[in-house]
Amino acid sequence: MAEASNVTAPTQFIETKLEKYAYRRFGTGSGLPLLCLQHFTGTLDNWDPAVTDPLASGREVILFESAGLGRSTGEVPNSIPGMAAHALAFVDALGLTHLDILGYSLGGMVAQQIALERPSLIRKMLLVGTAPEGGEDIMHMEKPELKKIADDPNLPGLKRLVKLFFTASASSQAGGEAFILRLAQRKQDREPISGPNVAKAQIAAFRAWEAFTGERFAKLRKITQPCLVANGVFDNMIPVRNSYMLSEHLPNAMLITYPDAGHGSLFQFHDSFVRQASIFLGSDKIWPA
Amino acid sequence: MAEASNVTAPTQFIETKLEKYAYRRFGTGSGLPLLCLQHFTGTLDNWDPAVTDPLASGREVILFESAGLGRSTGEVPNSIPGMAAHALAFVDALGLTHLDILGYSLGGMVAQQIALERPSLIRKMLLVGTAPEGGEDIMHMEKPELKKIADDPNLPGLKRLVKLFFTASASSQAGGEAFILRLAQRKQDREPISGPNVAKAQIAAFRAWEAFTGERFAKLRKITQPCLVANGVFDNMIPVRNSYMLSEHLPNAMLITYPDAGHGSLFQFHDSFVRQASIFLGSDKIWPA
Repeated sequence: MAEASNVTAPTQFIETKLEKYAYRRFGTGSGLPLLCLQHFTGTLDNWDPAVTDPLASGREVILFESAGLGRSTGEVPNSIPGMAAHALAFVDALGLTHLDILGYSLGGMVAQQIALERPSLIRKMLLVGTAPEGGEDIMHMEKPELKKIADDPNLPGLKRLVKLFFTASASSQAGGEAFILRLAQRKQDREPISGPNVAKAQIAAFRAWEAFTGERFAKLRKITQPCLVANGVFDNMIPVRNSYMLSEHLPNAMLITYPDAGHGSLFQFHDSFVRQASIFLGSDKIWPA
Repeated sequence: MAEASNVTAPTQFIETKLEKYAYRRFGTGSGLPLLCLQHFTGTLDNWDPAVTDPLASGREVILFESAGLGRSTGEVPNSIPGMAAHALAFVDALGLTHLDILGYSLGGMVAQQIALERPSLIRKMLLVGTAPEGGEDIMHMEKPELKKIADDPNLPGLKRLVKLFFTASASSQAGGEAFILRLAQRKQDREPISGPNVAKAQIAAFRAWEAFTGERFAKLRKITQPCLVANGVFDNMIPVRNSYMLSEHLPNAMLITYPDAGHGSLFQFHDSFVRQASIFLGSDKIWPA
């Protein structure tokens, strides 16, 4: 186990002008801190140590628990801007003024919103399994193929993630089983699991994010930071065409897609993803690494 | 200048059962030989040393001049299978039985055809700026935005490539100017430039490649080699959606796209492309690197 690890890092708490947030902060190195923004219903305990720990060998990794999740106080906002306000209150309370962001799924939308509201905060962004404002088919858990998994009483806890985040192939499912074993390595100081109110508010935020006014994707042109967009080609929670939209409309985005992978491509292909993220974050060049 | 370089490598010739082909072969290392298959109307002189030379530091790079191009004898076939037959005659004459392929544009289509006809020959493939059989909008030089460039009398020789292969942005055009300066570094032992008959036959091959019978993209499932698919998001000669089709239907393909880049993304972002290609080709893992 790595010295700096999401398996062992203590959960910390910070009071801010908005709420008291739980977070974890580990790792060291010459890189800027990497703020990690989490997926639908996920808590600090849903960050895969196979992704966070190697990245923490070159920089501080900071995992943020937004309002109403885990042991953070407050209510889950029903909009992406509402979530961005919590993330900004958090980084302000920590005194951080310049950082990189890994935004995964819901967290990638919050990252884009932060980039629009406070561009000077962000140097580079990793946007994984996510969608632009005005994206399509974002987390429609009522779709038959997702509803079947979500409602299956024989898929308790983390087993559900293996079906939701990975494809049906034997190798992808094996990757999913390895993923949940890694998540289960953390034995204490864990966060409470999200309840139905969390999902309800976050789904409302997804529905609002699908809408847009004016020219579609025009806001993406204002996000000039180098971005690395990544996804699995068979993501059925936030389909890969949303990643195409991002990489075609963000002015400085490189796209990577993984074969035989779903929403959890960064966990399935963690070696490749960490290598790519390290090259991207480690480069002094503006673009491309 | 690198010791093994397309600027200085002598053009060689080999007699085969079909034709006499011109080729260049340079570099050394522990990797499998890398067979490079060229783009629409391109000759051996159109391979950018910024791409070929660093790759030649880890393996032999073999540039192939197909029938009817440069100093190779014969006629340009009007179909991709016809071109694949020449490539196979060439590798057989060299006695090569296992190699990697870099197929760029037209060359990427020939690479796919070879993989279908003789799968045992190929370990891994780089498919850049190309399209599957049944792809869309492949090299329609009659489109206004392409015809305007192709017919411009004030764009002689390589200047035309700067407009065709790069976007209109200042930084992409600067990348294009640097590209043609690199191509011009080779001063002697150059190949004759392709005439209109070459273009006519290759365009006929593109039209045939756009057609398909039976289930669209079904053949891609048979190409099980690890593939790295790459393109620029603003390629207007073979639009990037053809790369999406490849990465979604090839069972083992990773996709990389580059921002503000056109058909010549590998030349514009040669540092990144060479790094990605080296990681991909250098890995012992089946997949993913």
